[in-house]
Amino acid sequence: MVEKIQIIPVQGMPLIKEGDNLAKLINNAAEKQGTPIQDNDIVVVTHVAVSKAEGAIVNLDTVKPSRFAEKIAKQTDKDPALVEVVLNEAKSIVRMGNNSLITETKHGFFCANSGVDRSNVPGERNVALLPENPDKSAAGIRQQIKKLSGKDVAVIVSDTHGRPLRDGEINVAVGVSGLNPIRDRRGEKDLYGYILRIKRTAIADELASAAELVIGQANEAVPVAIIRGYSYPKSETARATDLIRPKEKELFL
Amino acid sequence: MVEKIQIIPVQGMPLIKEGDNLAKLINNAAEKQGTPIQDNDIVVVTHVAVSKAEGAIVNLDTVKPSRFAEKIAKQTDKDPALVEVVLNEAKSIVRMGNNSLITETKHGFFCANSGVDRSNVPGERNVALLPENPDKSAAGIRQQIKKLSGKDVAVIVSDTHGRPLRDGEINVAVGVSGLNPIRDRRGEKDLYGYILRIKRTAIADELASAAELVIGQANEAVPVAIIRGYSYPKSETARATDLIRPKEKELFL
Repeated sequence: MVEKIQIIPVQGMPLIKEGDNLAKLINNAAEKQGTPIQDNDIVVVTHVAVSKAEGAIVNLDTVKPSRFAEKIAKQTDKDPALVEVVLNEAKSIVRMGNNSLITETKHGFFCANSGVDRSNVPGERNVALLPENPDKSAAGIRQQIKKLSGKDVAVIVSDTHGRPLRDGEINVAVGVSGLNPIRDRRGEKDLYGYILRIKRTAIADELASAAELVIGQANEAVPVAIIRGYSYPKSETARATDLIRPKEKELFL
Repeated sequence: MVEKIQIIPVQGMPLIKEGDNLAKLINNAAEKQGTPIQDNDIVVVTHVAVSKAEGAIVNLDTVKPSRFAEKIAKQTDKDPALVEVVLNEAKSIVRMGNNSLITETKHGFFCANSGVDRSNVPGERNVALLPENPDKSAAGIRQQIKKLSGKDVAVIVSDTHGRPLRDGEINVAVGVSGLNPIRDRRGEKDLYGYILRIKRTAIADELASAAELVIGQANEAVPVAIIRGYSYPKSETARATDLIRPKEKELFL
C-alpha cells in the first residue's frame, strides 16, 4: 500500500475580513467540500488571509512618510507611504536598489518590503502587513480548529519570498504551531549505513512550498491548503524564527 | 469536486548502479505498486540516483589533491581529496570557513561542496558528483518514460541545498525537462482585480521540495516521487539554470 501525501486546496472560503474566525471558515469549508479536517493534518494559511482577519491592514493614504522614507522611495522608485510602512515593520535594511528594498523584519525574517503585501488585499491603497506574531496566529488557528473539530493539527502561516542567488519566489513558513519546522536527520543512517552528519531539513518551508502548488494554481482564490499523510516531528515550543540562520553562522554571505 | 495534488513515493526500486536504465526502473516500480505513470505527471528524481546510474561517482582514494586543495582542506576541516573533487566541479569559490565550502558549480549553481554528496552512495570512500548535464539527464529519463509507457511527463532532477539567511536545507531543481521552472504570473489579476506586477513563482523548486516530503520521510529508500494533479507550464526549451539569478540582478547580496 503506497502512502501518498495529499495537498488539498480548501475551496469556497469567503473573502476574509477583519474579525473573521479563520479557523471556523477553514473548518467549515473543508467539511463542505467533503475533506473534513483530520488528526495530523497540516493546515497551511497564507499570511495575507491571517493579516486580513487580524486587521493588520494599512491604508497608505493615512500614512505620513518621514523625510528618510521619501529619500528611500526616490532611490527605489517606490511609493513613499509604502516605504514608510516597510520601514516601520523593519529592524534593519539589508539592501536597497534595483527597484527593491530588502529588509530584516521586526520578527527577524529577511525579505522584500518587510513582507508588506499589496496583492489579494481589497482597496487600491490598502496593504497587508505580516501578522504581529505569526507563531501566535498559527497557535490560535490550531487551538480553534481543535475546539471546533476535535482534531489535532499543525498550522503553518506562509509567505512568498524571493531568495538570494536563485531566481523566482517560493513559499516559506513565517509562523508555525504544533510542528518542528526543522527535521533534524543527523545521526540517521543512509541507504548504505553511512551516518548522516549534516542533514537538517527545513520541512516547514517545504510544506509551505507544497501548499503553494494548490494556492497559486487557484490564483489565490484558495488561501488555505491541507497537507495530509506527512508524518511531521511534533513540537509545542518550536517557532518559525528557528528557520532564520543566526548572522554569525551565515555560510553564504 | 476537489482537485487534490498527490505526492506519490515510488517504492521498491533496487539500489541504483552504473548503467541502469533509471526510466525503466521508475516505470516498473510505479506500475508494480499500483500507481502507473500517467500523462502530465511530474517525476522528481534525486540527483544521487541519476549520478549513480550515469557513473558520476568518484572514489576519493583515486584522487590526488593539489597543494591548493590541501590548504583549503586544512582551513575548512575537510578531506583534501574531497576538496580536490569539489574544486574540479566548481568554477568559483563563493565563501569558505566554518567547516563549509560554498562554491559556484560548473553548471552555475551556488551550493555547498559543488553538490558533491557522500550520503546514499555505496562505498565508504565514494562520492556522487552532480550529473554532468542535469537538464540532459532529465530529458533522457523523460524520453525513455515516453517510450516505455507512452505517457508525456515532466522530469525534475532534485538536490538538497542550504540557503543564505535561512537555516536548514530544502530540495530544489538542478535539472528540468518538459516544464518551465518558473511560472510567470505577472499580469494575472489577484482576488480583487489588482494586477500582479512581481509574481514569478519558482515552481520547479517548490515541486522538488514537495517531493522531498516523501523521499526524506522514507530515509532516501525512495529516490523518486511522482507529483500528480499539478497543472504545470509546459516548455521544451527551459533549463534549470533559468532558476539562477544573474549576478548583476542579485537583490540580497
